[in-house]
Amino acid sequence: MTLETATLLVSCPDQQGLVAKIANFIYSNGGNIIHADHHTDLEAGLFLSRIEWQLQGFNLPKNLIGAAFSAIALPLKAQWKLHFSQTIPRIAIWVSKQDHCLYDLLWRIQAKELKADIELIISNHPNLEPIAEQFGIKYHYFPINKENKQDQENKEIELLKNNNIDLVVLAKYMQVLSPNFIAQFPNIINIHHSFLPAFVGAKPYHQAYSRGVKIIGATAHYVTQDLDAGPIIEQDVVKISHRDTVKDLIRKGKDLERVVLARGVRLHLQHRVLVYGNKTVVFT
Amino acid sequence: MTLETATLLVSCPDQQGLVAKIANFIYSNGGNIIHADHHTDLEAGLFLSRIEWQLQGFNLPKNLIGAAFSAIALPLKAQWKLHFSQTIPRIAIWVSKQDHCLYDLLWRIQAKELKADIELIISNHPNLEPIAEQFGIKYHYFPINKENKQDQENKEIELLKNNNIDLVVLAKYMQVLSPNFIAQFPNIINIHHSFLPAFVGAKPYHQAYSRGVKIIGATAHYVTQDLDAGPIIEQDVVKISHRDTVKDLIRKGKDLERVVLARGVRLHLQHRVLVYGNKTVVFT
Amino acid sequence: MTLETATLLVSCPDQQGLVAKIANFIYSNGGNIIHADHHTDLEAGLFLSRIEWQLQGFNLPKNLIGAAFSAIALPLKAQWKLHFSQTIPRIAIWVSKQDHCLYDLLWRIQAKELKADIELIISNHPNLEPIAEQFGIKYHYFPINKENKQDQENKEIELLKNNNIDLVVLAKYMQVLSPNFIAQFPNIINIHHSFLPAFVGAKPYHQAYSRGVKIIGATAHYVTQDLDAGPIIEQDVVKISHRDTVKDLIRKGKDLERVVLARGVRLHLQHRVLVYGNKTVVFT
Amino acid sequence: MTLETATLLVSCPDQQGLVAKIANFIYSNGGNIIHADHHTDLEAGLFLSRIEWQLQGFNLPKNLIGAAFSAIALPLKAQWKLHFSQTIPRIAIWVSKQDHCLYDLLWRIQAKELKADIELIISNHPNLEPIAEQFGIKYHYFPINKENKQDQENKEIELLKNNNIDLVVLAKYMQVLSPNFIAQFPNIINIHHSFLPAFVGAKPYHQAYSRGVKIIGATAHYVTQDLDAGPIIEQDVVKISHRDTVKDLIRKGKDLERVVLARGVRLHLQHRVLVYGNKTVVFT
Repeated sequence: MTLETATLLVSCPDQQGLVAKIANFIYSNGGNIIHADHHTDLEAGLFLSRIEWQLQGFNLPKNLIGAAFSAIALPLKAQWKLHFSQTIPRIAIWVSKQDHCLYDLLWRIQAKELKADIELIISNHPNLEPIAEQFGIKYHYFPINKENKQDQENKEIELLKNNNIDLVVLAKYMQVLSPNFIAQFPNIINIHHSFLPAFVGAKPYHQAYSRGVKIIGATAHYVTQDLDAGPIIEQDVVKISHRDTVKDLIRKGKDLERVVLARGVRLHLQHRVLVYGNKTVVFT
Repeated sequence: MTLETATLLVSCPDQQGLVAKIANFIYSNGGNIIHADHHTDLEAGLFLSRIEWQLQGFNLPKNLIGAAFSAIALPLKAQWKLHFSQTIPRIAIWVSKQDHCLYDLLWRIQAKELKADIELIISNHPNLEPIAEQFGIKYHYFPINKENKQDQENKEIELLKNNNIDLVVLAKYMQVLSPNFIAQFPNIINIHHSFLPAFVGAKPYHQAYSRGVKIIGATAHYVTQDLDAGPIIEQDVVKISHRDTVKDLIRKGKDLERVVLARGVRLHLQHRVLVYGNKTVVFT
Repeated sequence: MTLETATLLVSCPDQQGLVAKIANFIYSNGGNIIHADHHTDLEAGLFLSRIEWQLQGFNLPKNLIGAAFSAIALPLKAQWKLHFSQTIPRIAIWVSKQDHCLYDLLWRIQAKELKADIELIISNHPNLEPIAEQFGIKYHYFPINKENKQDQENKEIELLKNNNIDLVVLAKYMQVLSPNFIAQFPNIINIHHSFLPAFVGAKPYHQAYSRGVKIIGATAHYVTQDLDAGPIIEQDVVKISHRDTVKDLIRKGKDLERVVLARGVRLHLQHRVLVYGNKTVVFT
Repeated sequence: MTLETATLLVSCPDQQGLVAKIANFIYSNGGNIIHADHHTDLEAGLFLSRIEWQLQGFNLPKNLIGAAFSAIALPLKAQWKLHFSQTIPRIAIWVSKQDHCLYDLLWRIQAKELKADIELIISNHPNLEPIAEQFGIKYHYFPINKENKQDQENKEIELLKNNNIDLVVLAKYMQVLSPNFIAQFPNIINIHHSFLPAFVGAKPYHQAYSRGVKIIGATAHYVTQDLDAGPIIEQDVVKISHRDTVKDLIRKGKDLERVVLARGVRLHLQHRVLVYGNKTVVFT
């Protein structure tokens, strides 16, 4: 059995002694560190750290760790988050009509590759409801048009809140979320079907075909108010040739999208991603 | 010893019997085909083909092959080029201050990886002249500024023509050539230090760093009047992480640039690239 | 709608005029070639070709094409196979306990990425029967031990024959088939969870971990009597680091196995693979 | 200008408080950590760490740091090495007849990509002496045969010692070093022209061609008494197809060998590689 761990994600202005102070906090309370990684962005003058330790034998009870660490964080002007491995994140998957990323996430969660609960599936189309049923997950159909978009998004936000959703995964949800939505629920990972920043916007495979590139890609990123410009978590590519039609690009791209989205979600769920500015540090 | 071969690159409106007609031309004249590859762009309604055969035992003398093939090409409205393997292309390499691509091309030609003669090196800076001397190649220094650009380009064109240059390779030549120059000498391959169309324009590694991408790339392409938008011959990428500074990106990028440019030049020199519209067919 | 095509896979001793003769056969009968690719293995003195043409407007009825081509093939001492795109291959998938490759193939066939019918699933374990049910496919459970192996294989062969199975896909079937089985049913694709010929035999991920490699791979190959030594169709790799445990290798490997097996099966189903000696030519 | 740094590479039996103790040592002496990375091999019960800090403002003089750290290391039963960034490693490059890796290393050192001094080049063939001259480096020619091998190796060892060589780089030295040599001078990096452990021994590209693999690779590893079985530092691969002859594999392989060897040497020179058992931890 895997022992429970706590993970601290910390960022603060760079200064001497940061590694020592954080490590001492764990050590002096009897914790056994099993992962510690740090990064200093010298340009930004920022120190970023991820530290994970076993809770067995740790002197502080779980509900006091945060308060205790605050005392260290405050003078360092540090921002931090604390996660416990036994708290299972609650996910909502959003889809449109394509099923490959949805199937892939469902399979990975069922196979325990991703440690999360899929609470619900939201879609602007009814098509994928049978898959939801197959896996015993509730499917919420919210058709979207110009007139009802704001209303529907309000209902969607309410649904997320009522279900205590921690993370929204846009698994080929072919709709742009409004700035208002993103402001209210900022924890969103999207899979974009291109090697961003190439081919932003609609129909990236058509764009790629028409430009005649020899490689296509996919990008998992956090959603921000700037469309397709949020912090990138993971990217990958595959070679193509003149023999590949748009249809082939879409097919090859699907394999990329599945894997890149799954990796991005996994990194997030393991609390390995720290966002600063429009970038990420990914502690692998 | 390698036997001499002839290579035909053909493109024409798609229609029945094209493979047969071209193959018959070779066969009926006693030629032994050693490479034949075809592609049909159904969208563009275009057939493209590369066919290479041994000249030993071929009934037509070299100087009549073109005329003989014309009789087949004309009714097909085909565009075509004929190359002989013993005709060694004459190259001019253009550089600015960076030496990695230059060294790489010189080494490859010396090692007979690339079958070409480097006739001259042209630069807008004097820095790399010692390398030219090391390899016994003439170095022409043309400083460029706004005032003299047109004059200098005219002299450069003259130099290319006087030396019967077949191909210009921009091996990190950090200057934009004028439309007039390109119109007069259209046979130019450039290495762009990004995965086009991402990060067009100046300082792509700085752009990539600032965007926080997880992969960088390089692109070998033909130069057209649209900056960074010419037909792509070859691309490749390398993974990066948050630990990589701009300096690291530049260093990692150099390894890509060397290899991608060399591959692009090699494909061109082997007459494996057919341009149509803004795309290439690469018969590998 | 896609028009029906015929595909010829031909191999014969190299000689002049082969491309012309094959192309003429199609052209003279009014066929429109949509794919033609050839390869000459100069060392083996062998010419290999794949040619695909539209049947619409072709003068020969389907049932006479083979006989007609025989007249050309015989004097060339050619081996050949003829396939029609509307003949859907019938597949049997063999599994043990792992479900990732099975799910993946089922999804791809459902999504029409792979053009085949999965007639039945065979397993030496009962575990994956629910998945078969989910997709409405018959599941045959054949427990194997030393004593019953020959008997069970005989029953399996009979099952394959009664169901007119064209291709067996070993989708993580963790049993070695007997030489006798392979002799009777030679059309088998296997996914091996390593970059062959590295780590042949059992537990390749454990072997890879213990050897400390920095990259792992997967290999789709035809099964022959030499274990793990059959002709390779497709391979791919992924980078790993010291942080990856055996469990991580297995997880990362699964993503490779799915994609590599699917690519290998797809290439086979599209009649793009020609085996000679212990190698393949893959006409992509 | 880059400030001088010290780097500690530490490995010891895993126990609580290791990160804290090492970080405290730096912090309590006024050091500013710029890189800290740790790894625990739970199976081996081993903690491994790399920590780098700026010497400016550090309270201990360089010559006392080691002694001071000993006091911490001893009770932890830690093995450790201390490096200063201003100590430039002294390299001997060993070659046979192929020049691509040699040129590449010379170029990288000249371009300051690799921070090292190449003190001498050793070869069992006279062929590459002109390149040594071109770059002003001494070339020592030691022809090797069965009779003289031990004598020659003794002279080579002496030469390495007299020149205070820190690292031998076998840049395509196509000779096996004797166990005796390796015992006396264990700091050797080799580039093997295959994706180890595939194709150990001679002529790996011929082996790869004959096996029909679809990918080839290269491996940079430390040399141990087990031929081709030493700890792997870096590997990379490139896709190939049936069109590639052995000659093509060799050509494509050369590009891999150059890059993989350079990366391996760079990681070593930056003190990012820790060997334990037959494996490496690479702190990138």
